[in-house]
Amino acid sequence: MALRSKFDPELQGLSKNFRLTKCTGLHGGGCKVPREVLQKLLEDFGQSQYKEEHFMGGMIMPRLGIGMDTCVIPLRFGGLSLLQTTDFFYPLVDDPYMMGKIACANVLSDMYAMGVIECDNMLMLLGVSSKLSETERDVVVPLMIRGFKDCADVAGTSITGGQTVLNPWCLIGGVGTSVCQPNEFIMPDNAVPGDVLVLTKPLGTQVACVAHQWLDQAADKWNRIKLIINEEECEKSYHDAMFIMSRLNRTAAQLMHRYGSHGATDITGFGILGHAQNLVKQQRNEVNFIIHNLPCINKMAAVAKACGAMFGLLQGTSAETSGGLLICMQREEAAKYCTEIKKIDGHQAWIIGIVEKGDRTARIIDKPRIIEVETLDDGTVQSIPPVTTTRRSSQIKPQITTPLKQPRLETSEPVSAHMDQAVSSAPSQEIPITTVTSVHDGEVAELTQIDGTVQLLQCGDQFQQQQAVGQVQYQQ
Amino acid sequence: MALRSKFDPELQGLSKNFRLTKCTGLHGGGCKVPREVLQKLLEDFGQSQYKEEHFMGGMIMPRLGIGMDTCVIPLRFGGLSLLQTTDFFYPLVDDPYMMGKIACANVLSDMYAMGVIECDNMLMLLGVSSKLSETERDVVVPLMIRGFKDCADVAGTSITGGQTVLNPWCLIGGVGTSVCQPNEFIMPDNAVPGDVLVLTKPLGTQVACVAHQWLDQAADKWNRIKLIINEEECEKSYHDAMFIMSRLNRTAAQLMHRYGSHGATDITGFGILGHAQNLVKQQRNEVNFIIHNLPCINKMAAVAKACGAMFGLLQGTSAETSGGLLICMQREEAAKYCTEIKKIDGHQAWIIGIVEKGDRTARIIDKPRIIEVETLDDGTVQSIPPVTTTRRSSQIKPQITTPLKQPRLETSEPVSAHMDQAVSSAPSQEIPITTVTSVHDGEVAELTQIDGTVQLLQCGDQFQQQQAVGQVQYQQ
Repeated sequence: MALRSKFDPELQGLSKNFRLTKCTGLHGGGCKVPREVLQKLLEDFGQSQYKEEHFMGGMIMPRLGIGMDTCVIPLRFGGLSLLQTTDFFYPLVDDPYMMGKIACANVLSDMYAMGVIECDNMLMLLGVSSKLSETERDVVVPLMIRGFKDCADVAGTSITGGQTVLNPWCLIGGVGTSVCQPNEFIMPDNAVPGDVLVLTKPLGTQVACVAHQWLDQAADKWNRIKLIINEEECEKSYHDAMFIMSRLNRTAAQLMHRYGSHGATDITGFGILGHAQNLVKQQRNEVNFIIHNLPCINKMAAVAKACGAMFGLLQGTSAETSGGLLICMQREEAAKYCTEIKKIDGHQAWIIGIVEKGDRTARIIDKPRIIEVETLDDGTVQSIPPVTTTRRSSQIKPQITTPLKQPRLETSEPVSAHMDQAVSSAPSQEIPITTVTSVHDGEVAELTQIDGTVQLLQCGDQFQQQQAVGQVQYQQ
Repeated sequence: MALRSKFDPELQGLSKNFRLTKCTGLHGGGCKVPREVLQKLLEDFGQSQYKEEHFMGGMIMPRLGIGMDTCVIPLRFGGLSLLQTTDFFYPLVDDPYMMGKIACANVLSDMYAMGVIECDNMLMLLGVSSKLSETERDVVVPLMIRGFKDCADVAGTSITGGQTVLNPWCLIGGVGTSVCQPNEFIMPDNAVPGDVLVLTKPLGTQVACVAHQWLDQAADKWNRIKLIINEEECEKSYHDAMFIMSRLNRTAAQLMHRYGSHGATDITGFGILGHAQNLVKQQRNEVNFIIHNLPCINKMAAVAKACGAMFGLLQGTSAETSGGLLICMQREEAAKYCTEIKKIDGHQAWIIGIVEKGDRTARIIDKPRIIEVETLDDGTVQSIPPVTTTRRSSQIKPQITTPLKQPRLETSEPVSAHMDQAVSSAPSQEIPITTVTSVHDGEVAELTQIDGTVQLLQCGDQFQQQQAVGQVQYQQ
């Protein structure tokens, strides 16, 4: 994939200092009202609406309310349901066209999380920044609209309405709606112990965008991270993030049907942990979600770490925009799912965690593995192949712990406050993962084809029979 | 109707100076991007999507796109259509609960304009102002949400999702969606010459809100109008405006089916003339809309006039929020419609203009009649009964021009820039309308029962047979 040339304001007749991201004080999914505040503010709606069975002419129709990606409303006609979602936010990239695409992909992602492939209609929500000059407005807004529309075209849907207001900050988003037969969507509440968690896009979009803003506009802040990434790497990660965010999760949604998804959500403003927590609360079965791997845009884990608590990327709380789907599936199916998504779209998906018996909580293990991810020249998104010859990795003697005699994964302690340190002791870009050759039930061969880094876990009740394949232990 | 007691910030634990309307720089429907700018920005969508026939399994399905209140999307199932609308804006009243109701009523109004009675789902869009303190936020936002929800309850629908973001300005709105059979909605494109135009709520909501803000917070501006209205009148018109805006157009929509609406729109940010122009452009037949009467919240015409070109109320360009429906109907049916709406809801509706042959333009006549409207103690909205004993009206010798030998109504000149002057010479609150006794085909008796002020016009081609009933001419 040729790099999309950077948005040049001057080429568009604007001042060279024009930055779309200056038209807001908050960026992308990070503009969400904090989850606990939101729940407090929305408590008027009560829990009763949250999820309820709805009797409709003798049929039990699912109904899903506030809190999840997409609401499901039983209709008066022939067992049909209305699935609907809305999302809007502020610019987090400076390329208006890409910003439009990202906004559209982000709205549709909520539908895809429900397995909905056909969006019957989109509305576009637009806030035109009152800070824009007339010239800027006439350049920037049509570009954003075109990006939004082009993305809708790719998704096979169209935009037939919306609302446009003046606002201090530039604002873009939309509403997606689909009327579906029962087999056209997947309720996100059927995870069972033994399932694994799949993620279809890497994390770190917010970190990449903010780091790029620092490089571009805030030398003092850039100085905090310039020993971690150089300018070229920063530009690359920003570019990668833009394309990752503008990509549709449509194939991911299609394959959820083929490989039997038990429920999914998409990762946006509350970070992977926040959305995992939302999803696990929806479950009919008493389960927990345990996240072991964090696929991140290359270098973003290190940047986040260098910034202390600012991003929360490694804690799973860093906001994402138009992130991947987080899907619960049987682990055998998950492997096939990842293989197939790669075959169709070229992009990698990752098995990042497990579903076990529990009390409907989600957490990240104490020492999650960071999987570094980059976009290749052909435009596909892949885990970075293992580095086996670096000075540091040569100092590390990997101890393959397969099969494990002892459970490797903590099952009870909360997400550690010392996670940074844990990551520090195991810089993932240097994990010599190619040394993993063990197989478990013949599945690893397939899984290592998928991403070269996946941990496959067999989880019985209480982890009695837990085994980890490919878990790497460091001796330093 | 007992007056709703004024929102008292101190009773809610807030500073006595707290004003919701300070959390925005623009207010209500006035936040819309100007119509011509919007059309320019949206031109990417092309006219092709604007309205097109859509062939669907042998059926011709209507499809309505950007520009009208509600989009109509043919679905894949059984001749069903998806009708959908969105609207959001900024606080224009200081009572958070009423603001929530208004926002909800405003969204639903778009559906009602299409004759849709049942809204299958609502999403709520919320921008929590970053200017609010935590205390303010925890008081104000739940009140707004409750108002929104209560209004949705009255409308028989529910809110099952939405998006909440932080924003410099407080923002509230929603998305309404209905899946309809063909007979459940009315396409707004079938006006024919000879129809009349009905309006279901008075104009002047923006003027009333702004005047009240001046009284409350801007003594210099208040001084400009304090000779026109006193404080009590200002409080009353503000209170009336709040209730008018929070009222649903649902009965108005129901009766559109019974009395054969040929098409309708609701009056919001572009003012009555702007929305009339939008509606007339949608028509299949070559028609014009001519507006003769402007029902306005009491005193608002005079306030607007005193403020020069600021509001455009008399020019039909003053923004409204959650305004009335503007409906094209056969005139006989319109009379029955107005009678029935009054019977059911208690509120008056007005015949305000005519549909004639033309080139799809809308205009207000040079000297429109201002109908002063107030909310009575029982909560119903009515034209103010004629004042026959004022000093001024006693100076005026009404000349009943019925039947006219000459056409009374201009048919070609644009809306006059001197309309203020025209109104000035005919202060409507003093129109001795009770002197109108002429009948035309026996209909006036019925019409004067409706509002006491209506002009009924019989319009043939080119006004060859035009006759005005009840047209009052002043000799000064």
